[in-house]
Amino acid sequence: MKECLGNVRNRVPLVHNITNYVTVNDVANALLACGGSPIMSDEAEDVEDITSICGGLNINIGTLHKTSIEGMFRAGRKANELGHPVLLDPVGAGASALRTDTALELMRELRLTVIRGNISEIKTLALGSGTTKGVDADVADAVTEETLDDAVAFVREFAKSAGCIIAVTGATDLVSDGERCYVIRNGRPEMGKITGTGCQLSGIMTAYAAANPGRLTEACAAAVCVMGLAGEIGWSRMQEGDGNATYRNRIIDAIYNMTGEELERGARYELR
Amino acid sequence: MKECLGNVRNRVPLVHNITNYVTVNDVANALLACGGSPIMSDEAEDVEDITSICGGLNINIGTLHKTSIEGMFRAGRKANELGHPVLLDPVGAGASALRTDTALELMRELRLTVIRGNISEIKTLALGSGTTKGVDADVADAVTEETLDDAVAFVREFAKSAGCIIAVTGATDLVSDGERCYVIRNGRPEMGKITGTGCQLSGIMTAYAAANPGRLTEACAAAVCVMGLAGEIGWSRMQEGDGNATYRNRIIDAIYNMTGEELERGARYELR
Amino acid sequence: MKECLGNVRNRVPLVHNITNYVTVNDVANALLACGGSPIMSDEAEDVEDITSICGGLNINIGTLHKTSIEGMFRAGRKANELGHPVLLDPVGAGASALRTDTALELMRELRLTVIRGNISEIKTLALGSGTTKGVDADVADAVTEETLDDAVAFVREFAKSAGCIIAVTGATDLVSDGERCYVIRNGRPEMGKITGTGCQLSGIMTAYAAANPGRLTEACAAAVCVMGLAGEIGWSRMQEGDGNATYRNRIIDAIYNMTGEELERGARYELR
Repeated sequence: MKECLGNVRNRVPLVHNITNYVTVNDVANALLACGGSPIMSDEAEDVEDITSICGGLNINIGTLHKTSIEGMFRAGRKANELGHPVLLDPVGAGASALRTDTALELMRELRLTVIRGNISEIKTLALGSGTTKGVDADVADAVTEETLDDAVAFVREFAKSAGCIIAVTGATDLVSDGERCYVIRNGRPEMGKITGTGCQLSGIMTAYAAANPGRLTEACAAAVCVMGLAGEIGWSRMQEGDGNATYRNRIIDAIYNMTGEELERGARYELR
Repeated sequence: MKECLGNVRNRVPLVHNITNYVTVNDVANALLACGGSPIMSDEAEDVEDITSICGGLNINIGTLHKTSIEGMFRAGRKANELGHPVLLDPVGAGASALRTDTALELMRELRLTVIRGNISEIKTLALGSGTTKGVDADVADAVTEETLDDAVAFVREFAKSAGCIIAVTGATDLVSDGERCYVIRNGRPEMGKITGTGCQLSGIMTAYAAANPGRLTEACAAAVCVMGLAGEIGWSRMQEGDGNATYRNRIIDAIYNMTGEELERGARYELR
Repeated sequence: MKECLGNVRNRVPLVHNITNYVTVNDVANALLACGGSPIMSDEAEDVEDITSICGGLNINIGTLHKTSIEGMFRAGRKANELGHPVLLDPVGAGASALRTDTALELMRELRLTVIRGNISEIKTLALGSGTTKGVDADVADAVTEETLDDAVAFVREFAKSAGCIIAVTGATDLVSDGERCYVIRNGRPEMGKITGTGCQLSGIMTAYAAANPGRLTEACAAAVCVMGLAGEIGWSRMQEGDGNATYRNRIIDAIYNMTGEELERGARYELR
């Protein structure tokens, strides 16, 4: 995985983000921390020019607004035309009709490289229904060691039918291209108490995909390991009285300082 | 007040925020820190679905935009229909006609549970005029020990006429339901040098209201004490060279770590 | 330069920001840190009222959207009418037609006090073309000791023809009013790994211009020194394991704590 990290640091992929206004600043700093470079633009008349100078496109529907939906499609089509990787983060799919429908339409209209979400969001897209509670995964859907075999089979199957990489993140993370499935066990539960760690991961994953065209699945899995490992390193630096605001900073700091060797040593995954 | 805090931590209320893009990330992290869960959505076609899965609605007009005003009304009516608490934070009411008019119309059209603002904003809503200077309270309006009796009377009267809880925050905070009035003396003046501590409080207060339906006034007062006490605890952890950016993080950290006992010991209020 | 800093702290200029949603929170906290006060509003129907109570206007096109372009023009015309300083930060000019065209039209329609950008953005505006790569300056454009004479001549000339102060920031910063040119060597390269240090500087520079009407060029140069020196001070406080997230906070902290004497001692500039 260290080659994937090295490629991001060496190639400094410029990532076009159409993302929510809640976590956008952290996404930008996380992208810079991992070695990429962020640019944000959601205006329909701006996105084609912007995505053309980028290496990848990250579409996140966390604060979906009618004024930016057209921009998602136009940017996505242009990125497809240029052969750039396109990631969809279907935040809150299942929680509202607009989000579910838009995510499904983006899947139909665009050639997505990867969809990254929590298990409830991904199930919504796969099954056309879900039990999404807000922007967090439903407990009933959680990927645990008991449900792991089923979850792996589900993710692999959905990746095959959707024709793209599926990354489900939670306590255990799964990344599959329809054949192989990475099962990743990095991370800390306290990351769920910070807004936007998932959004940050989507930005980083787009940078990893853009910088590693020949090994997309491994690159997406590496991005998951980077984020989870940063969560572990950041946590190890927490001091008495620190809480989720400081933890947020320490995670991004850990991404910033992460070396390929550190990633190689700390990544905890198996291939199924 | 510790029961109010405990209820938030146990019930993890999901709060729908239609809020400004300046402080939205801190609102989300403050909500997570206090034990709630945030979701943001301002698109008119999205808000009804979103608010339906939530326990409370926080409307903040800090960067009021025509594209989100309709969403405020639609979300508010749906929340009213479902019996969810609805909070209005009239940021900058008095500073522009659009803000003043929209806040007044939200008051007329919706059944608000609580309005939280600085004294200038609240006076604008009560009296139809004000001396709001930007998003900070005017010095001439300040609630001091000298003007306290008058301020308490004003807030109680406005709460009665408006039919909702009024929370005025500043050096001294007042929370009244038209009968009782909490006078709260937690907090630090340096909190005014951080953008969005008021917005964070509005988010937290909505979570407290959602998790404590049987004791709304106490819950709103408890939220004020949490924020003010976190400001004191955060300040006590400041080190040489720290400034408002670090202080922002330390306050949210303090909210994250606050226990019911700590709140009970640290809350400084009287009931009038 | 300490008088410029003192005037900001004493006069607490209220700055109206129409700015991107990526870095807006940091802009607000940086403005508070330097002694100013921020207010954000981009809705066309809101901006005239808001800018009227302010002392300066900061227009930043970092996430340019059709819904806020009209607000930029209306706010700008009102600020011109009232004699308020108006700053343009042409983020990404050269990277898209919409950004380039909007920036050029803002230059034509408004009486700008200062334009602050990286060298690629400024070249785009001056020459009608550029090699902007995203939101960062192109390496080929960089102001180095070798190209300094040419760069000074270019900036001075453009300031003269544009009729406003031009501030080009990068490894070496240049601020010229068409006659004098400040060459400033504060700052750290690692500041480029934080999103929005340029946006923060634009906010601060607007506050400095608003509080120092009699010495605008010096005020803009002082703002550049404040930001760069804060970058140096913040860096000196970095500890093992800290990265760009913590660095972001330390820079704003350093702005918050900076005294006039510290600025006078630390500012590294020459006048050409």
